[in-house]
Amino acid sequence: MYLTMNRFKVRPEAVETFEEVWRSRDSHLKQVPGFIAFHLLKGPERDDHVLYASHTTWADEASFTAWTTSEAFRAAHRGARSSGDLYLGPPELEIFGSVIELS
Amino acid sequence: MYLTMNRFKVRPEAVETFEEVWRSRDSHLKQVPGFIAFHLLKGPERDDHVLYASHTTWADEASFTAWTTSEAFRAAHRGARSSGDLYLGPPELEIFGSVIELS
Repeated sequence: MYLTMNRFKVRPEAVETFEEVWRSRDSHLKQVPGFIAFHLLKGPERDDHVLYASHTTWADEASFTAWTTSEAFRAAHRGARSSGDLYLGPPELEIFGSVIELS
Repeated sequence: MYLTMNRFKVRPEAVETFEEVWRSRDSHLKQVPGFIAFHLLKGPERDDHVLYASHTTWADEASFTAWTTSEAFRAAHRGARSSGDLYLGPPELEIFGSVIELS
């Protein structure tokens, strides 16, 4: 599994807006070669933020890299409105490769 | 998707030992009702640590909760040796529920 996660610390009062931004977004991911699955995940709630993570799995690193330079990538991000005030800080991208698998 | 992730900041010199601990562990997960998949993921490498995450998906929250009080859980953790010196700090458990899914 090749996994890219972007972590967002969303201000509590901005949770509904944040989810609506994602629901209304056309990510164009389904047509992307090597794309496996996308989830927007909601995590722990703290006093000053709620942790969300975009969770995207890919066939391999090359598929992800190719996507980041593709027209589909530009199209997916073109519609993203400026939403800096939704967050406590900038999103943090973390990329993971699988070391052990059990399923 | 119901996802439990435990994040480990592993000291660079302890990476091989850490992976060996996980490889040699019998997690007993495959017999657990509602268990879907487990991955040990390797993430970004920093100067003072490498981020690893255990990534376990479950059919639902009830399956995870039942596992944490089961004999299989106790068996999986019984063999875990004290490994505090492998890490920069304690592991951080994060639990996520799916808000949007695309696959």
